[in-house]
Amino acid sequence: MTLLKTPLLDTIREPADVRRLPQEKLAQLAAELRAETIDAVSVTGGHLGAGLGVVELTVALHHVFNTPHDRLIWDVGHQCYPHKILTGRRERIRTLRTGGGLSGFTNRAESEYDPFGAGHSSTSISAGLGMAVARDLGGGERNVVAVIGDGAMSAGMAYEAMNNAGAMDSRLIVILNDNDMSIAPPTGAMSAYLARLISGQTYRSLREIGKQIAGHLPKFVERGAQRAEEFARGFWTGGTLFEELGFYYVGPIDGHNLDHLLPVLKNVRDAKTGPILVHVVTQKGKGYGPAEQSADKYHGVVKFDVVTGAQVKAKSNAPSYTRVFAESLISEARRDPKIVAITAAMPSGTGIDLFGQAYPDRTFDVGIAEQHAVTFAGGLAAEGFKPFCALYSTFLQRAYDQVIHDVALQGLPVRFIVDRAGLVGADGATHAGAYDLAYLGCLPGMVLMSPADEAELMHMIATAVAYDDGPSAVRFPRGEGVGVERPDRAEALPIGKGRMVRGTGEGDVAILSLGTRLAAALEAAERLEAAGFAVTVADARFAKPIDRDLALKLASGHSALVTVEEGSIGGFGSQVLQFLTDEGVLDRGTVKVRSMVLPDIYIDHDTQARQIAEAGLDANAIVAKVEGLLGKAKAGRELSRAG
Amino acid sequence: MTLLKTPLLDTIREPADVRRLPQEKLAQLAAELRAETIDAVSVTGGHLGAGLGVVELTVALHHVFNTPHDRLIWDVGHQCYPHKILTGRRERIRTLRTGGGLSGFTNRAESEYDPFGAGHSSTSISAGLGMAVARDLGGGERNVVAVIGDGAMSAGMAYEAMNNAGAMDSRLIVILNDNDMSIAPPTGAMSAYLARLISGQTYRSLREIGKQIAGHLPKFVERGAQRAEEFARGFWTGGTLFEELGFYYVGPIDGHNLDHLLPVLKNVRDAKTGPILVHVVTQKGKGYGPAEQSADKYHGVVKFDVVTGAQVKAKSNAPSYTRVFAESLISEARRDPKIVAITAAMPSGTGIDLFGQAYPDRTFDVGIAEQHAVTFAGGLAAEGFKPFCALYSTFLQRAYDQVIHDVALQGLPVRFIVDRAGLVGADGATHAGAYDLAYLGCLPGMVLMSPADEAELMHMIATAVAYDDGPSAVRFPRGEGVGVERPDRAEALPIGKGRMVRGTGEGDVAILSLGTRLAAALEAAERLEAAGFAVTVADARFAKPIDRDLALKLASGHSALVTVEEGSIGGFGSQVLQFLTDEGVLDRGTVKVRSMVLPDIYIDHDTQARQIAEAGLDANAIVAKVEGLLGKAKAGRELSRAG
Repeated sequence: MTLLKTPLLDTIREPADVRRLPQEKLAQLAAELRAETIDAVSVTGGHLGAGLGVVELTVALHHVFNTPHDRLIWDVGHQCYPHKILTGRRERIRTLRTGGGLSGFTNRAESEYDPFGAGHSSTSISAGLGMAVARDLGGGERNVVAVIGDGAMSAGMAYEAMNNAGAMDSRLIVILNDNDMSIAPPTGAMSAYLARLISGQTYRSLREIGKQIAGHLPKFVERGAQRAEEFARGFWTGGTLFEELGFYYVGPIDGHNLDHLLPVLKNVRDAKTGPILVHVVTQKGKGYGPAEQSADKYHGVVKFDVVTGAQVKAKSNAPSYTRVFAESLISEARRDPKIVAITAAMPSGTGIDLFGQAYPDRTFDVGIAEQHAVTFAGGLAAEGFKPFCALYSTFLQRAYDQVIHDVALQGLPVRFIVDRAGLVGADGATHAGAYDLAYLGCLPGMVLMSPADEAELMHMIATAVAYDDGPSAVRFPRGEGVGVERPDRAEALPIGKGRMVRGTGEGDVAILSLGTRLAAALEAAERLEAAGFAVTVADARFAKPIDRDLALKLASGHSALVTVEEGSIGGFGSQVLQFLTDEGVLDRGTVKVRSMVLPDIYIDHDTQARQIAEAGLDANAIVAKVEGLLGKAKAGRELSRAG
Repeated sequence: MTLLKTPLLDTIREPADVRRLPQEKLAQLAAELRAETIDAVSVTGGHLGAGLGVVELTVALHHVFNTPHDRLIWDVGHQCYPHKILTGRRERIRTLRTGGGLSGFTNRAESEYDPFGAGHSSTSISAGLGMAVARDLGGGERNVVAVIGDGAMSAGMAYEAMNNAGAMDSRLIVILNDNDMSIAPPTGAMSAYLARLISGQTYRSLREIGKQIAGHLPKFVERGAQRAEEFARGFWTGGTLFEELGFYYVGPIDGHNLDHLLPVLKNVRDAKTGPILVHVVTQKGKGYGPAEQSADKYHGVVKFDVVTGAQVKAKSNAPSYTRVFAESLISEARRDPKIVAITAAMPSGTGIDLFGQAYPDRTFDVGIAEQHAVTFAGGLAAEGFKPFCALYSTFLQRAYDQVIHDVALQGLPVRFIVDRAGLVGADGATHAGAYDLAYLGCLPGMVLMSPADEAELMHMIATAVAYDDGPSAVRFPRGEGVGVERPDRAEALPIGKGRMVRGTGEGDVAILSLGTRLAAALEAAERLEAAGFAVTVADARFAKPIDRDLALKLASGHSALVTVEEGSIGGFGSQVLQFLTDEGVLDRGTVKVRSMVLPDIYIDHDTQARQIAEAGLDANAIVAKVEGLLGKAKAGRELSRAG
């Protein structure tokens, strides 16, 4: 499979093998592990830069700590590929993020070496503290280590956990992996603070760290350190912020230097004291030239050529929804100076980077801080601005209370751009945007749109600009559009009105589609018509408020009405069912209504198309659903009836 | 209405009148404002302690700042009654929290002096920063002031906002109102840090504050301060944590001393520099003996006697659901040492205080930090414990992503105790537990229960203890039970099975109730039976998974099936509609199905009973719904048919 020579790595079946290696062999192991990681990701694509930054740290942690008895929790999980290679999953590493293959994140179901699943950021300290408290209650001795990036430290959740941990006696080791870069360049005061801790000095020498640890920890064992303690006083002033929060602070340490990492990790392991924060400085993309030189440090890559680093971008047929959104908003902002854009550490993922190039003063990336992002947008809206708050569906979950309490309840016209709605492919279940139609659709006053194609998206952005009476949201999927022609100028749509797309509005079956499921609905319609059915296809456009006239018309004009959406139960289909039953439309047995939604399971990583098929929301599934209602073919049904 | 003498307060129609008063009159105004606040709350009940703590601060802020042009944002809003009295709402202050009366929180719809609504904690810095940025974009000069308590500082959201504000240049004034007490005694490292800032010293003298401000602010105007600057260096070391986060720190200041407050506020108003944090120390319940001496400082009170402080507790007929939960869990914990309890700064509101008295080592109050609370529980569950995470429904919204990502997706058996589900009375729309059935019901693997009475709650707690295959939740309302006899020992229920309560399972109408709406369903049944209808009443017990057999049986045995729940669209009723349509039960026109849910509006504060009536979920509404389906009376219907 690969031409790599990895003689030492080949001897590693599990972390116990890493612990058996003498310390002087670990640098070689790290080098081989780095090469293997690069080679694997060149085949699979995925998150590369983060893993390369922690190769030495991964080796050191498994050498020093007794995993899996000791709990090692990787925050987010972007950086876990080297960890997976060392923990019995090397043979499957080239299945990363593919159907049936390894998850791109840590996953409890996958390995006992993954004690807590991840995917979203900033959860590791909370989970680790829970495990540490569990150990204390059970009277055990295990170590709990959480590895968290500096970007993740901007999230309130990490602070909440530190605030709680710092006030408890529980023994917890937090490794702050400071690569001065999350997905986007760092933002926020914490980031600046960490930079100050590092700036103006080289990394602490082992002797200096010895002094520092001696000042804090009861059992520092490096020779000479105790005697050095008197020199430490007054010398070391860094880390105050963490110490004020109740942590012992150790660092900064060069995270690529095993001679520094290993003794420090051994010491904190043996310290038997309260929460400790070890500040490790690493370089994202370390050891792979093309990654080190790229702006995003190869955060997420597709397949690439190992020698040149050239990524094999798939040829795209149409612009992504993200790009269409960004271009639309830029265009609207030219006419409307009240438009501002907000995101939470996902500027390129949401297209806010493009908006920021056009309107830097009207663009705000608040860091990994969705709660703040939404209420900050609420403040802007209260002052008459038109904030577009662009987040992934899965991350908007982080700000649910803020959407309700600070925006919807006050009727503030914040515009939510809900990217990556529906199934997202290789990132899997942690990143699925499955629930937004349910969790936003239940909120009074929320206007909730979903475009069927990129032209529709443009109109919906124009609609969101124009609609100033309360909150609105536009939800659209990951990936590229369907390739329709885009209008020169978008126009605001009437709120709560859908559109007829195909058919006469009377016939055997009406398919009422929300969002980009329209393409599957149209394909299904074609096949059903070939089987003799008269089919109407409509695009709901709005999940809330639903188009009541359209729903009534479709229900009265057809034998069957099927709603389709790429979302969980509780969303658009539930709105339609509630309305139709309230109106008594289903009382007479004149129309069979079905709501096709995501199934009640978590769908693992795979291609988006295969996920959609597994979910039963592709054209095949729509055809099958209608056939289940009306028979295999119109003619056949009538014949059998006649017979 | 009152015998109070308030000659100065009587001259205050709006804050401009406060600004016109000479400084030496303000102490008297504060005294009268305090007396008026006490008197008003003695009549209405509500949040008293927080308001009493900020009487001087409220007077000082409106004297120094040009409200409403300057934005004054009260975090949470518990403390806003004195503010309401000074801002044109004195005449309505004795309508607080009653139907049609003033809200107990700030509310944009109520007054231009409330620039941002509140109710939940820790939102003010985010909203304020949004307003400050709006001002900067618009080129204005207004001041933005956020007043936030020390308890609110434990929430990640406040940290996210500070982290963002500290990295921006925007001029924002944050008043940290440090009363060393949120609803519960303070928890967390931040709280300890604030205590250290205050401890070991009296409050800074004006001269010392002058030095401090001179060290930081470019335009300090107090006489002599500039010359004192040289003395300040090396003298002042407090506030480092906030300064590391990019704020100017000023304090601590005695928040009851107007001679200290006024010059400091004037200086920060005129400073024209980046974000400033003013650390003000106050005493919750200040100036009212009974409040100062009570453990919770009269955080929330019912009507009371002003002279004695004796609260007029309503006579209760049954224990509250909260208490029944607490007693059940204590009882279960006696048998199962793996049970632990977690809450987020609402120990008494959730009954976790009682559990903590019985099992202090197994009880964790993490502060106002719902996100952390849930993932911390996830860590405990991953290690084999049985965490009961008790939060109000409205606050669980804060941890939605954690419920999904850190618990449900991983199948971890965290038990969510969702208190205050449904409509909550005087706290109004901000605190309504309206959405949990929708936002939890859409999650695969979630077991979602709701008890009809206190005996059922006991069984459901036993069920949650026994069910270890994944996450579960028990949601119940604010207030007392219905007074049923409680069993000696609770028993685990079969998952996803409801129960027949009244009737034969065949007849004209079946009412399928979830939770405590059962009482209304039974009352409606009685009236409907009196009108000649044969009525079945069933208790669903589970909102997810629903009892499919029961739903089919009720649908096939009746002309009409009505589901009733105290929750929004997307919850239990949507689960039933989805199932019945999927099964084709509604295709034949043999049964009319209706789902009665909360209406698509925000319901203001009022008594719970009146809110329920407004929502159309009381017995009257159920009767009307059934009559709409089946006619006014069985006999009459048949007669008219015959005719």
